[in-house]
Amino acid sequence: MGRRNLGPYPKGVKVQAAPLMLTRFVSKTILQFLFAQAPNAGYPLATPPPSTTAHLRQSLQLRRSLYFSMALRFEVLGRFNRARAAQLTLPHYVCHTPLFMPVGTQGTIKGMTNSQLEEIGCQIILGNTYHLALRPTSELIDELGGLHKFMNWPRALLTDSGGFQMVSLLHLADITENGVTFQSPVDGKPMLLTPEESIEIQNRIGADIIMALDDVVRTTITGPRIEEAMYRTLRWIDRCIAAHKRPHEQNLFGIVQGGLDPVLRDICVRGLVDRNLPGYAIGGLAGGEDKDSFWRVVAQCTAALPEDKPRYVMGVGYPLDIVVCSALGADMYDCVYPTRTARFGTALVPEGVLKLKHQAMADDTLPIDPTCTCMVCKNYSRAYIHCLVTKDAMGSQLLSYHNLYYMMKLSRDLHSSIIQGRFPEFVCGFLQKMFPKGDVPKWVCNAMEVAGIDISSCCAPFLTSQD
Amino acid sequence: MGRRNLGPYPKGVKVQAAPLMLTRFVSKTILQFLFAQAPNAGYPLATPPPSTTAHLRQSLQLRRSLYFSMALRFEVLGRFNRARAAQLTLPHYVCHTPLFMPVGTQGTIKGMTNSQLEEIGCQIILGNTYHLALRPTSELIDELGGLHKFMNWPRALLTDSGGFQMVSLLHLADITENGVTFQSPVDGKPMLLTPEESIEIQNRIGADIIMALDDVVRTTITGPRIEEAMYRTLRWIDRCIAAHKRPHEQNLFGIVQGGLDPVLRDICVRGLVDRNLPGYAIGGLAGGEDKDSFWRVVAQCTAALPEDKPRYVMGVGYPLDIVVCSALGADMYDCVYPTRTARFGTALVPEGVLKLKHQAMADDTLPIDPTCTCMVCKNYSRAYIHCLVTKDAMGSQLLSYHNLYYMMKLSRDLHSSIIQGRFPEFVCGFLQKMFPKGDVPKWVCNAMEVAGIDISSCCAPFLTSQD
Repeated sequence: MGRRNLGPYPKGVKVQAAPLMLTRFVSKTILQFLFAQAPNAGYPLATPPPSTTAHLRQSLQLRRSLYFSMALRFEVLGRFNRARAAQLTLPHYVCHTPLFMPVGTQGTIKGMTNSQLEEIGCQIILGNTYHLALRPTSELIDELGGLHKFMNWPRALLTDSGGFQMVSLLHLADITENGVTFQSPVDGKPMLLTPEESIEIQNRIGADIIMALDDVVRTTITGPRIEEAMYRTLRWIDRCIAAHKRPHEQNLFGIVQGGLDPVLRDICVRGLVDRNLPGYAIGGLAGGEDKDSFWRVVAQCTAALPEDKPRYVMGVGYPLDIVVCSALGADMYDCVYPTRTARFGTALVPEGVLKLKHQAMADDTLPIDPTCTCMVCKNYSRAYIHCLVTKDAMGSQLLSYHNLYYMMKLSRDLHSSIIQGRFPEFVCGFLQKMFPKGDVPKWVCNAMEVAGIDISSCCAPFLTSQD
Repeated sequence: MGRRNLGPYPKGVKVQAAPLMLTRFVSKTILQFLFAQAPNAGYPLATPPPSTTAHLRQSLQLRRSLYFSMALRFEVLGRFNRARAAQLTLPHYVCHTPLFMPVGTQGTIKGMTNSQLEEIGCQIILGNTYHLALRPTSELIDELGGLHKFMNWPRALLTDSGGFQMVSLLHLADITENGVTFQSPVDGKPMLLTPEESIEIQNRIGADIIMALDDVVRTTITGPRIEEAMYRTLRWIDRCIAAHKRPHEQNLFGIVQGGLDPVLRDICVRGLVDRNLPGYAIGGLAGGEDKDSFWRVVAQCTAALPEDKPRYVMGVGYPLDIVVCSALGADMYDCVYPTRTARFGTALVPEGVLKLKHQAMADDTLPIDPTCTCMVCKNYSRAYIHCLVTKDAMGSQLLSYHNLYYMMKLSRDLHSSIIQGRFPEFVCGFLQKMFPKGDVPKWVCNAMEVAGIDISSCCAPFLTSQD
């Protein structure tokens, strides 16, 4: 792990997190365990924690934890091993975690009215700062009374920093120590988004949670760029904190970077925790890395982040990933997946997905999911939606409704099963429906061992014995 | 009007309406009056009926009329001169007229859920037989329990014959005595839609009102083709009646054709009325003819159609046209206009239309229409919708909602103002908002004279004196 030979920093920038702090923060044993099967790690998989009934009962003797700041209150209401169910009180809404946040690029979730979003139990909407800053501009949103008022959304809002979208959407974006330099999509001139400017824009937009500008790199790249990005993210967090003008009304979350390298992740977590932020995000994942690497980074970060503050895994949206991450102690998720896949004609169902464009749907009179109680499943047949998705935007609207309902219900089910001490049963039921033959993916089995959830009842005997 | 020298009919086809019946049905005086300003007519405009208060009061001494068949009950609840407000009881819904029917091409109104349509007071949806017959096919709709069940719409439905869409959408459509021949959009082979087949398809779809297959020609063409189409429409009505297998559950409406020629229109009305159908449509209009020709055809047909049966002006959807036609005694309308114009970013407002894409909307915090109480006007600003319409489909959804709400409210206002004896006041208020300078178009003034509605209070003195 010889990556501590860091390059020189720009003058005047204070490096907050020294690599030597590593051993104080996360023991070698934990690292060995977590990264036993990570690429190039080579450690044997450590023995998982016992998961007897006695152990499960004991784990329910909860350590309740509570964090309170001017603009956020996070109260853990129940735990099951690493999983937790909490009440997250934000300026505009009292949320329950685990929770999923739909992405509303243009100040709207495609195809859903706000009353429909309230109807299905949506607690927080994510607004893309980049899009909002371009149109209608953050100045105008500020003049009109903030994004809540502009989009008439009474519940909680989160805005991203704008940096990720600039880097991912624009080919000509470049990251320097000062910020993200990109070509203006309006007039083609070079523009710069600095940490200060990102926070200024987000202060004007006025969301309940605002995100620090980070230096994001793909998890699939290797080499010194990962390390550079992590340290830059740490340097930028102080500029974000200093620029934040509304800490009593808006919560600035820091973002853990560091790619798939456990040492870098550890340094980043440590550096951010030192800043005592109201919440933390795990960034840079869901970008094409293998699933075993994915869950191990999540597991490491959730283990190291404070017990009494929300943990948000960015860009994660497959139902299976959310169940696994929640078992590992994550609380918040966001993804365009449920609405994007709806536009491709795909519905989320307990068995996985249902492709409504398939010819077999043409005369199927069943609802999308006979066990679902959403407006769409109560009112429409697969045949009707098949007829629409092949031609009309209405089809994807109905599917978006169903898919987001599915995600909201999944969030509620995670919360209540943790509170009621039946989280393992819920996870097993979930996996049984998705993998009726017992062929639960190996990475899920590995993650559940670390999470202390016994899923042997929903794994086929042969496959289980192979693990 | 020397168009009675008709060509030979196909053998075995009985010509129902003889030209000689003309004088029995509509007097020369009425024709002279109605077509005083029609192109090439040359008659002076006759004196309009008196519109003193005494006259208005007298006109409120209503002749109540009631038509009752197995599948339709039409009860006139109130009149104001020619205008009437009625209760139209159909197998699936008790409607109030005048009413506007949104067009749901694919078994759905673009951008609106059925619960939203119920919410805004939509009474009847129009389904396009051509689209439904192509996908999912009428056989499948029949198997699935009919269109009401398929699209989960509990209220009334109307289907068109399919002919108009074939002629208007397909370049290679051709009309012969047997039916509409067209190239299949699926495999390119020639196909034939006969009157019998149109009714068979509509019987399978199962709407409350089904439309006869007619021979539609543009109102802007002239010559013997108009006459041929009108007589063919009359010949086809008998084939439609004979083919109709569900007269106790579905109401077959005949369609008056005849272009802008009052003699041909008269023959067609007479022929259809002889068949004692449950309702009548005025077809072939809203196809580019001048407004004075348009309203005169409507006025002639509504005057000649039975008092106790619904009158449906096809393809009409501008609010002003609906107010004028209602004053002339029409009851039902359909048009894609409110939803299509929404997709172009335009909202219907009392003043006319509001173009939300206009730069002036970017920072306008008012609702679309400050006097409107719809969900959209209660919740969103012009600035927000401006931001959406320039990029996102959600903008047009919100505009569709508002525009259809506007049309439904217009229908309700027409109904209640007629019932309450304040129809002229309503019309004047409507015109005042739309033409605040008093520059009410001449064709509207002409039509209102025939309708016996005094609109002098909302016309500018100078303009009025010019009339």
